[in-house]
Amino acid sequence: MAPLADFYQLTMAYGHWRAGRHRAPAAAELFFRRGPFGGALALAAGLAEGLRGLRAFRFSAADVAYLRSVLPSTTEDAFFDYLATLDASEVTVTAVPEGSVIFARVPFLQVKGPLLVVQLLETTLLCLVNYASLVATNAARFRLLAGPDMKLMEIGLRRAQGPDGALSASKYSYIGGFDCTSNVLAGKLYGIPVRGTIAHSFIMSFTSLEEVRPRELPPLAGGEPVDLPSLAERWLRRVCELLRTPPEKANQGELAAFVSYAVTFPQDFQGLLDTYCVRSFQVPWFETIPIAVSNDISEQSLEEFSRQGSEIDMIGVGTNLVTCPLQPSLGCVYKLVEVNGSPCLKLTEDEEKMTIPGTKTIYRLYDAAGHPFMDLMALEEEPSPSAGQELAVRVLGQLGETSKVVPTTVEPLHRTYFRDGQVCEPLPSLMEVKNHAQVSLSLLSPAHRRLHEPQPYPVAVTEKLHHLLTELRQASQ
Amino acid sequence: MAPLADFYQLTMAYGHWRAGRHRAPAAAELFFRRGPFGGALALAAGLAEGLRGLRAFRFSAADVAYLRSVLPSTTEDAFFDYLATLDASEVTVTAVPEGSVIFARVPFLQVKGPLLVVQLLETTLLCLVNYASLVATNAARFRLLAGPDMKLMEIGLRRAQGPDGALSASKYSYIGGFDCTSNVLAGKLYGIPVRGTIAHSFIMSFTSLEEVRPRELPPLAGGEPVDLPSLAERWLRRVCELLRTPPEKANQGELAAFVSYAVTFPQDFQGLLDTYCVRSFQVPWFETIPIAVSNDISEQSLEEFSRQGSEIDMIGVGTNLVTCPLQPSLGCVYKLVEVNGSPCLKLTEDEEKMTIPGTKTIYRLYDAAGHPFMDLMALEEEPSPSAGQELAVRVLGQLGETSKVVPTTVEPLHRTYFRDGQVCEPLPSLMEVKNHAQVSLSLLSPAHRRLHEPQPYPVAVTEKLHHLLTELRQASQ
Repeated sequence: MAPLADFYQLTMAYGHWRAGRHRAPAAAELFFRRGPFGGALALAAGLAEGLRGLRAFRFSAADVAYLRSVLPSTTEDAFFDYLATLDASEVTVTAVPEGSVIFARVPFLQVKGPLLVVQLLETTLLCLVNYASLVATNAARFRLLAGPDMKLMEIGLRRAQGPDGALSASKYSYIGGFDCTSNVLAGKLYGIPVRGTIAHSFIMSFTSLEEVRPRELPPLAGGEPVDLPSLAERWLRRVCELLRTPPEKANQGELAAFVSYAVTFPQDFQGLLDTYCVRSFQVPWFETIPIAVSNDISEQSLEEFSRQGSEIDMIGVGTNLVTCPLQPSLGCVYKLVEVNGSPCLKLTEDEEKMTIPGTKTIYRLYDAAGHPFMDLMALEEEPSPSAGQELAVRVLGQLGETSKVVPTTVEPLHRTYFRDGQVCEPLPSLMEVKNHAQVSLSLLSPAHRRLHEPQPYPVAVTEKLHHLLTELRQASQ
Repeated sequence: MAPLADFYQLTMAYGHWRAGRHRAPAAAELFFRRGPFGGALALAAGLAEGLRGLRAFRFSAADVAYLRSVLPSTTEDAFFDYLATLDASEVTVTAVPEGSVIFARVPFLQVKGPLLVVQLLETTLLCLVNYASLVATNAARFRLLAGPDMKLMEIGLRRAQGPDGALSASKYSYIGGFDCTSNVLAGKLYGIPVRGTIAHSFIMSFTSLEEVRPRELPPLAGGEPVDLPSLAERWLRRVCELLRTPPEKANQGELAAFVSYAVTFPQDFQGLLDTYCVRSFQVPWFETIPIAVSNDISEQSLEEFSRQGSEIDMIGVGTNLVTCPLQPSLGCVYKLVEVNGSPCLKLTEDEEKMTIPGTKTIYRLYDAAGHPFMDLMALEEEPSPSAGQELAVRVLGQLGETSKVVPTTVEPLHRTYFRDGQVCEPLPSLMEVKNHAQVSLSLLSPAHRRLHEPQPYPVAVTEKLHHLLTELRQASQ
């Protein structure tokens, strides 16, 4: 399998190779520029898959033959021989643990290695991390809106970008806070709980109660079997009285379908309302039946359910979860920050698109209440800030002035996950990642966690890193 | 590999099996309800993959064991034995040829077979057809906006739902009218032309012209090799004079990167403008260099380029192509239309969500100018309408009145693609599908093809089908 690469990674690789710079030591960082969906936070996801991509990174003979057929005929043979020898054995990757809360402009994955390989890994890592983090974040938002008790089910299989897009959606929605999925394959591959009831097609396939077979069901408490269709008809009359509706108005096929379903799953009956009216849950018996809804649920409709305190106890979310229509891309970027020991700077008129040069250590600073209040980027050679000691920092967006902060706790955010061609840190299970995400979210102050118009989370650089930035900017003007 | 299924397909399957209806002959149709992106048309895509899914449709021993672990413990053993015997050998599929223009509410895929299998195939087919058709349609819109000569390149690998989402995006964008992709794997697997130039990271990795190696290039016309960095400096001074800008303002690293790239690819130089200003293409030499742009291109920015007639000759589209932000899901549905010889009707207050009952033949009617002017659904047992003869039809949305039409040509839209467990019609190559899509689009009248506020394309039913619909609606009231 050819590396997941954009073709320009290969033309650039050839450029570096021809200029004899392919083995220059280089470092790159992966981050996003703006909090998604109007919030401040995102969840880092896709790390384990990214590491698998790194471990598998090499060009097979067939890949090299293919590249030979598409690169210009002037490309030197020796370059292809060199490609065939490449792997990620000289690459080191540090990252925040999968499931961690992350913020705009803070690198959550760093790659070091030979320039050519660091360059080639750009698309691989972006492809595996971008959507994973986006959909995990989207799921986390639905979870924050729904509260801890509502069951959330991912039902996006038919709306995703094909089978594997759907698998990613199921996996990363689960990490972000969903309880289960409709996707049988995701259940089988990842052990995510699967749920499901019936669809319209089941209802449409019935026309009358006579089609219900078998008809009898023994009561759970023991005793004579009961004829369920007849029982259903008696209850229907009572419900119709309550609703002041003639029983003939009830659709017989629908009734038959639900009765047949109840006979088939006597202990696992789950009511489903797809095309429903939110105001209509006024029938007292509903309280004892689990009700699921699934009609084009969005953040907004979920908010409405939460406000109204309805009897619903499971919500299925499909399109609005997996396609992330509020923002269909997290827009992660992967930027070179150092080549041959020299820090790189991307110059642009757009302050937000400016990169922060140099290889860095990232710290998260916590206040006395245990809330993180700032992420801090320092140059790698700087000593770690100390808990309880005053720090002079420059906050991005207000670089002109120095701010003083005193962290109660200082946490280095990154761990080294990949070194010498191997994953060198034990990877947590899906359930552990999911739990870590909820813990990471719960540590945030409510003002930063807020889904809309959150308090901006400050991201800062040390005075020394700020000095380097200023120097490089002046030198290039 | 377990079938691509939502879990409720399995609970419903058990319901049908327990009621002894699993082998009841059934028919289902796949269609969308509203033209995507505000247009009238879509392109049908994903058929070949859907057929592959059908051929591979079966439950392995591991799948059955997994299902046994997740279905309720009351599920009968014999049901699992039955699942293990299933395949698509009794299924017949008809469809419009891949790449055809299709319209809302007209079934573009029909499935017949035993009820349980027809039910189980719902998610498989939706998953494989939904996104494929959506992104092909999105690509077709970019092509219609760009005109026939502009090169369009798909660059969405890093923004898609993981590697396979990206492969689908590359394949179906190509079908919809794109010329090439940045996705190396899509190039290798599908033979789609790949293109690419350089990225910011390449530019950022250079700091001065001294890093350019090798420096010399022999002119194409023959003669002494030229020192390219020196030549570039001389030209830079001339360009700066023209732009009235001091040469010191040109970034030396950027200059070095482009010169190095030109030395590396002497015959394939492709200018790239990522972060650019549309008004700035006023340098006369630009006319002789192919220029590509790729900065967050949307339908709107493409329209601007077309209006201004700029020197750009290649446009790369990523996020706005592959994630389809204007409408991230086509919303295809798969509805039962007949069970046991009885037509099914989905009753709903929402007229748009009503289904058309019965198994049908679909015709496209053409006018004397060769434009399709109506799609017509007839019951399967009805004789085909005849070219040149007046037809009485009912147009959806105005079912109360009869319309008379006289088609110059009548085309049956569907072909039988799958029967007896086999694909029974030769499948066209990707290039043939791509060409068919352009032909299918070109036949449309401009009023129907228009991207915004198109003239609604009429979809009609025969008088006989209308009669059946009325009967079923009355019977169920």
